[in-house]
Amino acid sequence: MGEFDLIARYFKRPARRAALGVGDDCALLAPTPGTQLAISSDMLVQGRHFFADVDPRTLGHKALAVNLSDLAACGAKPLAFTLALALPSADEAWLAAFSGGLLALADAHECELIGGDTTGGPLNICITVFGEVPVHHGQSQALLRSGARPGDDLYVSGTVGDARLALDVLLGKYAVPAEVLAAARARLETPTPRVALGLALRGVATSAIDVSDGLLGDLGHILECSGVGATMQADDAIKSIATHAFTTRASGQFDVKFSTEQWRALALAGGDDYELLFTAPTQQRAAVAAAAQASQTPVRRIGQIEPEPGLRLLDAQGRPLPNHYASFDHFA
Amino acid sequence: MGEFDLIARYFKRPARRAALGVGDDCALLAPTPGTQLAISSDMLVQGRHFFADVDPRTLGHKALAVNLSDLAACGAKPLAFTLALALPSADEAWLAAFSGGLLALADAHECELIGGDTTGGPLNICITVFGEVPVHHGQSQALLRSGARPGDDLYVSGTVGDARLALDVLLGKYAVPAEVLAAARARLETPTPRVALGLALRGVATSAIDVSDGLLGDLGHILECSGVGATMQADDAIKSIATHAFTTRASGQFDVKFSTEQWRALALAGGDDYELLFTAPTQQRAAVAAAAQASQTPVRRIGQIEPEPGLRLLDAQGRPLPNHYASFDHFA
Repeated sequence: MGEFDLIARYFKRPARRAALGVGDDCALLAPTPGTQLAISSDMLVQGRHFFADVDPRTLGHKALAVNLSDLAACGAKPLAFTLALALPSADEAWLAAFSGGLLALADAHECELIGGDTTGGPLNICITVFGEVPVHHGQSQALLRSGARPGDDLYVSGTVGDARLALDVLLGKYAVPAEVLAAARARLETPTPRVALGLALRGVATSAIDVSDGLLGDLGHILECSGVGATMQADDAIKSIATHAFTTRASGQFDVKFSTEQWRALALAGGDDYELLFTAPTQQRAAVAAAAQASQTPVRRIGQIEPEPGLRLLDAQGRPLPNHYASFDHFA
Repeated sequence: MGEFDLIARYFKRPARRAALGVGDDCALLAPTPGTQLAISSDMLVQGRHFFADVDPRTLGHKALAVNLSDLAACGAKPLAFTLALALPSADEAWLAAFSGGLLALADAHECELIGGDTTGGPLNICITVFGEVPVHHGQSQALLRSGARPGDDLYVSGTVGDARLALDVLLGKYAVPAEVLAAARARLETPTPRVALGLALRGVATSAIDVSDGLLGDLGHILECSGVGATMQADDAIKSIATHAFTTRASGQFDVKFSTEQWRALALAGGDDYELLFTAPTQQRAAVAAAAQASQTPVRRIGQIEPEPGLRLLDAQGRPLPNHYASFDHFA
């Protein structure tokens, strides 16, 4: 099967939102008047972002999900994306499953595949995604990393740490019961981009970022970009680990009893979570709760923004904790 | 050097056109009112699109050039691009040279790097480029593959075949004098995206494509998308090979005497040329000449569009030639 057949068979669809979709030198996109385009690009590499034997359907899902998560963190509404794909071979079953997972998530978010590239080479998936953000009276409604202000509450959505738990188990670092692994693995392989929450937080949150490199590492970006510091209740973050509650209940069957310290490391530095970490003024607590409700996304308050730079971690008793939770770095 | 240092040191610049550039979850771009966005994405893989020992400065140039060439083929004005980069290691000398070549071409076209991704992995460069095309009275001014009409002239810009000649020599298929290789290699490693010509052809050309997979292969896309056929003077295309004139003069020193058939194969199926192949009505010949002049780009008329489907190749004496010139396919 040649390159052009491959594109046509698995990825070409009639243009809907785009003025012109897959199949010319460029795709053409006409943004809605009065909006800015939010653009993000992520590259996924085998052996680094996913295992060679990963289910291609979940891989297709995740490749787009991590990009949609960037749109969510900006409060942008998904519009379209391009896909560039390096493949060791044109394996039809793999391609059918990959494009199936990818396009199912795309359809769920009405995000249209408008172009891209395919080539031979070590497996590599590069998606660039486009979303829209309204501009009101010359003011962009995008959520940025730079808007956190002293006094703001700090929140995290959904669950963090589970993806890392699954990764560690799959790497053989420890064993957990099958049902714990299944729950954690779903978070690793099919993360839910928090697009609806991001949209609901426009005009409510003062800053936002998506948690991809680890909660503390990504919080560091907000603090640095905003020129502020924070105090964070580390053990509140632990409660955000889905498998924590699960394994506490199921701890009788557990091969490894995790210490509080191990749970902290998972929650604070796990990475690959694709949750939203955001700040909002205290007087917006009801609005944050309403946004969580409207988007059907759990949200947890885990700290406060302060004028003094730096991050102060507290345990459940309010005692200071040393911050030795390294964040994920692709070159570390 | 960590991932974030790497981005900051070699790729981060203050946002100019973009409302927000490198360093948030998304870049924000506000297209000019009354324009459409033209978007293209290309992925370059080591060992397939370039040699492992290629000069990183020319690689940076080429990675962006092939994307700008897609904008040129649409008649779009370059605006911005994202860069996703998988690197085996964070080699500072390599990165400095690569970003130098990339950003020099970007600056020449006022095309701003607004975001992207870096990761470890087998060397892979994925650029997504954004350009603007005006919309007049609801009508896009983009040049498409689908607009060729019977009676139109067929043109190709610049030179074709030289990149393939250089590739074949570098692969050891044959030898040529050093000065011939140097000329051909410049076309392989630092192609010139025909952006100015593409802009000048808006409202003049009826269809356009950039020659990346080979002249005949890319002509096939125009014919198919436009529902037409063509007759082409194959030996006029040969005259477009820069090194043809050169090597004809220097043929005394030549290790291999090329047959006409070999020259034809280079011109018609060479690939990697990044020239514009386009059509225009015969009454636009003066306008095409003016566009070539204004953009300082040589343009050659090499055929005619006809209603009968298929491609008819003629030699210099007007005799039919069999078309056995296969086009490049990344999975062939």
